[in-house]
Amino acid sequence: MIDQAMIVFSPSGKRGSFPIGTSVLQAARELGVDLDSVCGGRGMCGRCQVQCASGEFSKHNIISHVENLGESTSVEARYQRIHGVFADGRRLGCQAIIQGDLAIDIPAESQVHRQLIRKALDHANITINPAVRLYVVDVQEPDMHDPSGDLRRLKQALMIEWGLTGLNASLGILRQLQETLRKGKWQVTVAVHENRSGAGTFDIIGLWPGYKEAIYGVAIDVGSTTIAGHLCNLATGQVLGSSGAMNPQIRFGEDLMSRVSYVMMNPGGDVDMTHAVIEAINDLIRAVSTLSGILPEDILELTFVANPVMHHLLLGINPIELGGAPFALCTDESLQLPAAQMGLKVHPLASVYLLPCVAGHVGADTAGVVLSEQPQGLDELSLLVDVGTNAEIVLGNRERLVACSSPTGPAFEGAQISGGQRAAPGAIERVRIDPQTLEPKYSVIGSDTWSDDPAFAMDAAAVGVTGICGSGIIEVVAEMFLAGIINSDGVLNGELAARNSRIEANERTFSYLLHKGAEDGGVTVRITQNDVRQIQLAKAALYAGIRLLMDRLQVERVDRIRLAGAFGSHIDVKYAMVLGLLPDCDLSQVSSAGNAAGSGALMALLDKEARTEIEQIVRCIEKVETAVEADFQQHFVEAMAFPHKTASFPELGKVVQLPAPSSARPVKRRRVRRN
Amino acid sequence: MIDQAMIVFSPSGKRGSFPIGTSVLQAARELGVDLDSVCGGRGMCGRCQVQCASGEFSKHNIISHVENLGESTSVEARYQRIHGVFADGRRLGCQAIIQGDLAIDIPAESQVHRQLIRKALDHANITINPAVRLYVVDVQEPDMHDPSGDLRRLKQALMIEWGLTGLNASLGILRQLQETLRKGKWQVTVAVHENRSGAGTFDIIGLWPGYKEAIYGVAIDVGSTTIAGHLCNLATGQVLGSSGAMNPQIRFGEDLMSRVSYVMMNPGGDVDMTHAVIEAINDLIRAVSTLSGILPEDILELTFVANPVMHHLLLGINPIELGGAPFALCTDESLQLPAAQMGLKVHPLASVYLLPCVAGHVGADTAGVVLSEQPQGLDELSLLVDVGTNAEIVLGNRERLVACSSPTGPAFEGAQISGGQRAAPGAIERVRIDPQTLEPKYSVIGSDTWSDDPAFAMDAAAVGVTGICGSGIIEVVAEMFLAGIINSDGVLNGELAARNSRIEANERTFSYLLHKGAEDGGVTVRITQNDVRQIQLAKAALYAGIRLLMDRLQVERVDRIRLAGAFGSHIDVKYAMVLGLLPDCDLSQVSSAGNAAGSGALMALLDKEARTEIEQIVRCIEKVETAVEADFQQHFVEAMAFPHKTASFPELGKVVQLPAPSSARPVKRRRVRRN
Repeated sequence: MIDQAMIVFSPSGKRGSFPIGTSVLQAARELGVDLDSVCGGRGMCGRCQVQCASGEFSKHNIISHVENLGESTSVEARYQRIHGVFADGRRLGCQAIIQGDLAIDIPAESQVHRQLIRKALDHANITINPAVRLYVVDVQEPDMHDPSGDLRRLKQALMIEWGLTGLNASLGILRQLQETLRKGKWQVTVAVHENRSGAGTFDIIGLWPGYKEAIYGVAIDVGSTTIAGHLCNLATGQVLGSSGAMNPQIRFGEDLMSRVSYVMMNPGGDVDMTHAVIEAINDLIRAVSTLSGILPEDILELTFVANPVMHHLLLGINPIELGGAPFALCTDESLQLPAAQMGLKVHPLASVYLLPCVAGHVGADTAGVVLSEQPQGLDELSLLVDVGTNAEIVLGNRERLVACSSPTGPAFEGAQISGGQRAAPGAIERVRIDPQTLEPKYSVIGSDTWSDDPAFAMDAAAVGVTGICGSGIIEVVAEMFLAGIINSDGVLNGELAARNSRIEANERTFSYLLHKGAEDGGVTVRITQNDVRQIQLAKAALYAGIRLLMDRLQVERVDRIRLAGAFGSHIDVKYAMVLGLLPDCDLSQVSSAGNAAGSGALMALLDKEARTEIEQIVRCIEKVETAVEADFQQHFVEAMAFPHKTASFPELGKVVQLPAPSSARPVKRRRVRRN
Repeated sequence: MIDQAMIVFSPSGKRGSFPIGTSVLQAARELGVDLDSVCGGRGMCGRCQVQCASGEFSKHNIISHVENLGESTSVEARYQRIHGVFADGRRLGCQAIIQGDLAIDIPAESQVHRQLIRKALDHANITINPAVRLYVVDVQEPDMHDPSGDLRRLKQALMIEWGLTGLNASLGILRQLQETLRKGKWQVTVAVHENRSGAGTFDIIGLWPGYKEAIYGVAIDVGSTTIAGHLCNLATGQVLGSSGAMNPQIRFGEDLMSRVSYVMMNPGGDVDMTHAVIEAINDLIRAVSTLSGILPEDILELTFVANPVMHHLLLGINPIELGGAPFALCTDESLQLPAAQMGLKVHPLASVYLLPCVAGHVGADTAGVVLSEQPQGLDELSLLVDVGTNAEIVLGNRERLVACSSPTGPAFEGAQISGGQRAAPGAIERVRIDPQTLEPKYSVIGSDTWSDDPAFAMDAAAVGVTGICGSGIIEVVAEMFLAGIINSDGVLNGELAARNSRIEANERTFSYLLHKGAEDGGVTVRITQNDVRQIQLAKAALYAGIRLLMDRLQVERVDRIRLAGAFGSHIDVKYAMVLGLLPDCDLSQVSSAGNAAGSGALMALLDKEARTEIEQIVRCIEKVETAVEADFQQHFVEAMAFPHKTASFPELGKVVQLPAPSSARPVKRRRVRRN
């Protein structure tokens, strides 16, 4: 019988010699091997599962076999009765006792810093390394011979069992401490938040008698129109549910600036808007919790991204300064604060983390996009565009990042368009126009058939045709341009009225009839000259903003384009480029980034290092303020043409036959002279 | 004309050469001379007043004269118009410009770390070094070419002008930041709290447009019976007002244990008691603020001392664990927390500091006494006694400190005594008994005349004779003992009934008629055998506690005794020693420490270093738990006799002729046999 045994862990390759009788968890801890445990070896949490690799490992000069792990214990049997049988002959690392040489595999799920691959959320792997963790401890009972407060003994247990120092407890914890300790018979699970009160601090923010299975976090993206949240298990990173809701602030104003105006006109209106959005977030949290079968009280951590106006309103900061130059943010720094202070109905001591803002109109949402997209990690020059009523734009690579916002207005969201509406069932979202007949076909959200399909009438009947949404507008205007119905200046060609009656004269201009409503009051959708003009204004603003950033980096082309947000997920990038929303780029390198801002919030929720990372990156992003850049106006005027007055689109030209530019003078000037 | 001049500061003696044109404040700062300033050299705060010492200073080889300070400026004229003319040719250091060699005196009031001598509060000098300070700054306006949040620029100003780093701002500050900056035209006064979020941090907790004159703090002692508070200017240390109020928790129970019992009997009763005490504190704060002509919103810092049960109830922590062994405190550590969290109606971001507790029944009030009395700084062995329903006792010197509490019960406060009452007008407080005639004379609170004075009837008529208070009980029992009416076992000598009819028989025991009420329903005060017994029980508990501490330190005598609290201020220490409440000691070394606990709270309010000091000392105090000390019972029984069964009182014997000990067996045993 030998007294020591050799144990080799994979994937780390760490190895060491231990006395027979040492637990595998203990050996892993001593070697600094990444093996998870919440209960600290009490056989309660099941996180430390390991597997024995049997065979001869000549490299390590050992023969490993499963008998060297000892017999399965009654603690493991109890765990399996409650939680199900272990897969593949796994054992609890805390119960498996070293009896001889061993090669031990640590499955990914048993690693503390495991990687999470979340394809559905469109982002790179996330390391699970949350700010809040659970720890089980046995606290020493009070002793009259050596009196000390219960808190002191709790801290001692956390230090001895888990090496935690710099521990703080707020009044909320003190008020429940004594009862919880006694209820748990001096065994409690503690939720500890790292670095909340500064570097190297550990704040006790939750306390439960005995063993607490899991705690949760929510990552929330507060957009002007919608609020979206992901609910996660903070230990495993598993997304249990995602939910979205309308931002109820819409009743105070459709877009950001109209909400700021509302505050200017109605002092105290910001308080009402803050109240409305917090209530909506509480509803969303309640909904996604119910959906996921958990209690909101078990949510210990929340992260938020938002554009600057939403960011301020979320915090109860009057956004009025963002309504005019110099667009001063109250703060551009990241924030960590108690959820209760914001009125969020989760665990009473839960914590909120808001990502930093970049500048006056480039918010924490853009920080979220950057965190999720990581342009600073690439050699290729990435253009990140989050289109909303204000487009937030980032351009750069590992050498340099620049950002700006551009006031695109709400046209891309279907507002200020005659037949426009939000993306909802019944909205026209896809359009094709036959360049010969000038006849259109289209499809609506909620139906897969095109309007020229005989099945369309029946399929679309369920939802009806209710208007046209942002992506539909882009497509119809681009198709009108490709079909020659409008020229590169955006002017509807009235001469075509002779060829197809869909081109109709209205006073001095023309319009194109896309969809004629039924006699009994259905919606008729026409694309008017003014609709085209609105799209021109919006896309010129977007392009001019992008162009300013390209100027700043002194580049003439970008390598890749990522479109963040709902708009980016729905538009056909080819049409967007035909209209010149975006600069020329290999179309295979243009794609949707999904809800990248929300993904950034999720990364900050699950990995506290991601917070430090984005805080550092944001400070290095150079801000370009379009309002004070002399070139912006010139870029804007040139970008009014389809796809652009001067810029060439060679990559686009490879896949689309663009009409020749019109020789007419720019539309805008003509309009000015007309009026 | 020379370009440099020599400047010498006193009292520091620091000196240096500076360019002509440098301000005296600037020179002081560069040399690290202690010269105060809140406004940072803007001529607003008047804190940096200095005085030129004229003449030849051969030691420094300079000739100093007042002309070398330059002309008085318009800024100084404006300051004097508002605040009054400077004394003794003083100048504002920030306005006085070096024109030649100078010897500059810095008066005590202009020093940041000045000493405050507060005789009225019975404690040593306090260094004024508060946790919260005001700073005036000019914040850079926002610039679109280099966008950054208002908070970032505020922090920059605090760093550049005042060298503050590690700055934090809570949501409450963010919500008012933008408006305040603009209201003050980018000049604001900032209140910064040092080390609230950990060592080296500076929390911005207050913000005012322009220049803010002063902020205040309150030090509060929450006793079981009374609550006392001192309101101070946090910069000067000046006590503007002091106020006291009854603790409304009395309606839930007279003493500590009855309040804990109330919670045991009425779940949730702790919440009611917390509510009551916080409301009373808010009333007190409002009252003392009004009295001092300030607003409660200008109170930025509060410190508290309290016994353990009050400490827990103050914080909303259920004190039930303090009601029985092992008497576990929720926490014995000092606490720093937002005043708003406790429901205190002061500045919304004000901070509260609670001194640490020593042990289960030795609270933050004792920590206050130790901080104020500083026994750890003396060679002499000090005995500190805070008598309440629970006596808290500390014994020691610079080598070692020990502490305990002893359950004296409420007898010393006049409770459980047949004619007993609280110390209030009309209560008998002084008593003398003629040993020959056995006739008493007495005086009552609210009147200076003795009852044998013909003027007594008229003087006392205003208040009446309503009962007997704690100090009166001590005196009458001691005088009865000295007159032989009771023997050293506390037994009333019935044989004396023959000599004076004031000795009256009641069933098996006797009583002594101290005061006969008027026929028309006045109060009659008798001292019964049971009253004497109550005093014996109380004093035996106190003495036994003290004796345990003396045993622990292996000493037979103490060098000095300090009596803290209201009881200590009112009793005649000679009588206390005649009864054996205290061990023998040179009577000239026995004195009242006044409200030493409150003084400790005041020190912690005005000097943040005092907090670190008491936190360290408290951890070094050895706790003795009377409930588990085997010797306590024996000490208690021996201490039942007057002044003591075995201990000698040589020092007391020098000033008082003590009766010979009775040969009878101890009273307690006899009582037991009788029943």
